[in-house]
Amino acid sequence: MEKAKVVIVGGGFGGIEAARGLAGSYVDVTVLDRTNYFLFQPLLYQVATAALAPSDIVYPIRAMLRRQKNATVFLSEVTDVNVAEKVVIDSDGKRYPYEFLVLACGGRHSYFGNDALEEFAPGLKSIPDALEIRRRFLTAFEEAEKTDDEAERAAWMTFVIVGGGPTGCELAGVLPEIAKRALRPDFRRIDTQNTRVILVENSPRPLNAFPDELAECAVRDLERLGVEFRFELKASVIDAEGVTLSSGERIEAKTVIWAAGNQAAPLGAALGVPRDRAGRIPVEPDLSVPGFPEIFVIGDMAAAGWGEGKLVPGVAQGAMQGGVHVARMIRRRLSEEPGEPFVYKDLGNLAVLGRGHAVADVGGKTFTGLFAWLFWLFIHVLKLVGFRNRAIVLVQWAYNYLTFQRGVRLITGRKKEGG
Amino acid sequence: MEKAKVVIVGGGFGGIEAARGLAGSYVDVTVLDRTNYFLFQPLLYQVATAALAPSDIVYPIRAMLRRQKNATVFLSEVTDVNVAEKVVIDSDGKRYPYEFLVLACGGRHSYFGNDALEEFAPGLKSIPDALEIRRRFLTAFEEAEKTDDEAERAAWMTFVIVGGGPTGCELAGVLPEIAKRALRPDFRRIDTQNTRVILVENSPRPLNAFPDELAECAVRDLERLGVEFRFELKASVIDAEGVTLSSGERIEAKTVIWAAGNQAAPLGAALGVPRDRAGRIPVEPDLSVPGFPEIFVIGDMAAAGWGEGKLVPGVAQGAMQGGVHVARMIRRRLSEEPGEPFVYKDLGNLAVLGRGHAVADVGGKTFTGLFAWLFWLFIHVLKLVGFRNRAIVLVQWAYNYLTFQRGVRLITGRKKEGG
Repeated sequence: MEKAKVVIVGGGFGGIEAARGLAGSYVDVTVLDRTNYFLFQPLLYQVATAALAPSDIVYPIRAMLRRQKNATVFLSEVTDVNVAEKVVIDSDGKRYPYEFLVLACGGRHSYFGNDALEEFAPGLKSIPDALEIRRRFLTAFEEAEKTDDEAERAAWMTFVIVGGGPTGCELAGVLPEIAKRALRPDFRRIDTQNTRVILVENSPRPLNAFPDELAECAVRDLERLGVEFRFELKASVIDAEGVTLSSGERIEAKTVIWAAGNQAAPLGAALGVPRDRAGRIPVEPDLSVPGFPEIFVIGDMAAAGWGEGKLVPGVAQGAMQGGVHVARMIRRRLSEEPGEPFVYKDLGNLAVLGRGHAVADVGGKTFTGLFAWLFWLFIHVLKLVGFRNRAIVLVQWAYNYLTFQRGVRLITGRKKEGG
Repeated sequence: MEKAKVVIVGGGFGGIEAARGLAGSYVDVTVLDRTNYFLFQPLLYQVATAALAPSDIVYPIRAMLRRQKNATVFLSEVTDVNVAEKVVIDSDGKRYPYEFLVLACGGRHSYFGNDALEEFAPGLKSIPDALEIRRRFLTAFEEAEKTDDEAERAAWMTFVIVGGGPTGCELAGVLPEIAKRALRPDFRRIDTQNTRVILVENSPRPLNAFPDELAECAVRDLERLGVEFRFELKASVIDAEGVTLSSGERIEAKTVIWAAGNQAAPLGAALGVPRDRAGRIPVEPDLSVPGFPEIFVIGDMAAAGWGEGKLVPGVAQGAMQGGVHVARMIRRRLSEEPGEPFVYKDLGNLAVLGRGHAVADVGGKTFTGLFAWLFWLFIHVLKLVGFRNRAIVLVQWAYNYLTFQRGVRLITGRKKEGG
């Protein structure tokens, strides 16, 4: 019997787990990704704020699957799926036939149809995104140091974050620390203590996925760092000079970061099945696509049911558990066993709010402050060590993280035209 | 008496030494650079070959001058000098008046008038250059893994380096090690042992600044790594598919790196004084510009005499010693003491040829092999520790360097149109 071909599109948390779950199986696994690296996305906001370097949070996909002999990795941007011929097609026109297909391409930030906002308020989903935000963040202080105009200086030193989810709150937690502590001794003409960070959130509180008491605690922790909040307000206008809120308030700010919405990767459209408003594919209980039992969708691309009307959240755990599940489904299918519904195990929510502070909601228990932060550090460092596979990397990473490693503060890339 | 304004353009080896040499003097020092970081250029080839990360070899200029209270740093791209009004002007039109001006902008690689070559054969002078070469180097193996065409695969696995100076030889030394050793276990369909590295050099030998016996040793060391040489030949044609040599030989190679020529930064033209063929300004014995005793030029921008008809070489030592000298000249000028001629102290030449091998020519003595390599490591690590100021960085750096840290292997940036 010939080996079944399994094609996995996307080498993130979901795709890697799916590939690993097929180690030792009588299949040919092909992993396709448009980048050559796995990205430890939960720490991306630290690259955006010059606290970590890109190389601290990525790892080559090939190296992760190096020992898995039935897995082949290609750098390839998949642009189409032909479900009739069972083949995926990449941007070079190269075709990869499959018996089983796993779509795990993740998502992008969403401007709810108003993509022109990206120029003024970049989002944070990839390494290039993070480097662009880092460039704007560091350049803002350079421009503030240069100008002689007080109003312009204040606008350079004002940062608006749109969206109070975990990404928005984590950015709001680390920005003031880097600005007010790490950067302060480097400047002559400005006092970085005057940096303003303003978080705009549509709903009455941040961290909607967390219990009320943790959201309150997060607000206290961030206010202690000087973060200002604008709740129950939208950013009606965003331009190169600032933000106008739905209340009419105008905030002069040269740097705006978008952390307000997500949408699934566009490849899902190629399947020709219904998608929800966020572009996600509502999947069967076993994570397969309705009408296509050989195609599975996991992670941010899937709308997978969980309990009463809830959806599996778009976090690393959801994608990883989905990857493990579909690998088992494929193995069972090959041995002609019946499928099983995916059961999501909620491991809780965690958000870090500056160094030494975090909020955690784990197994129905809530934790705050230093204990929650140490818990966060422990979990993330465990994961990083797991994927990097060397204890010394932990020392290096912890050192970079705790000392505000200065080499990270390089401004790369160029200002876009009109940007 | 008002403080004299000293403007230093360029925050490299020369500019930083000039600024530091004025610490404690009764002057206002302004350092202008178009990047926010000092670049430890001798290790740039290691970033280009994915052996080190950019953050390992840069340091913010502001942080280097943090404690020097009379120095102010601005991120600013200087585009013009008005020698009559004694003011430099940047790309935003901002004007910086000076009583003393130090030009230390370094150089770029030169295509000897044929700049169209850059698309097919990028050079290596900056972090973006290094990231572009790293992208091409790593992508070549990705493409080789993907293709089913044997000839195309061979062309992806062939690398041509044009120019046999220290940069060319150091690239030729590290490329085979990363390719054949570090990358090998990651690939399924190609054997990276088949990687070819070909070095093309116009003259009969590499490393023209070194004694004959060291050049011979370098050839032996590199041949041991599998590097092929083409001496006394030029690259007549370079295109997207390879190189045609002046002998008529055609080498099919998808990746070509240019290490053949240098030219001074174009800002020198703004002074309106004669420049040599490489764009350098022939300076007075005290490093001032003929006719402009208040303007000094150092490093790669200067053609400074040394001994009988020799020029100070375009290396870090030349720039650093020049910076120290002009700082002293400015201090003497302020106390109305006479100037002094610059005396270059040749500290020797050093080139590393893969890990564990190097050639050194120090104080008339020559060293080769492991001893020269350890000497190189010692000097470079000393310098890095000096500028980074923390012993633990040495551990981290040495670890990255010795273990082929995999996180560095990320392909960033995008293929240029037609590139």
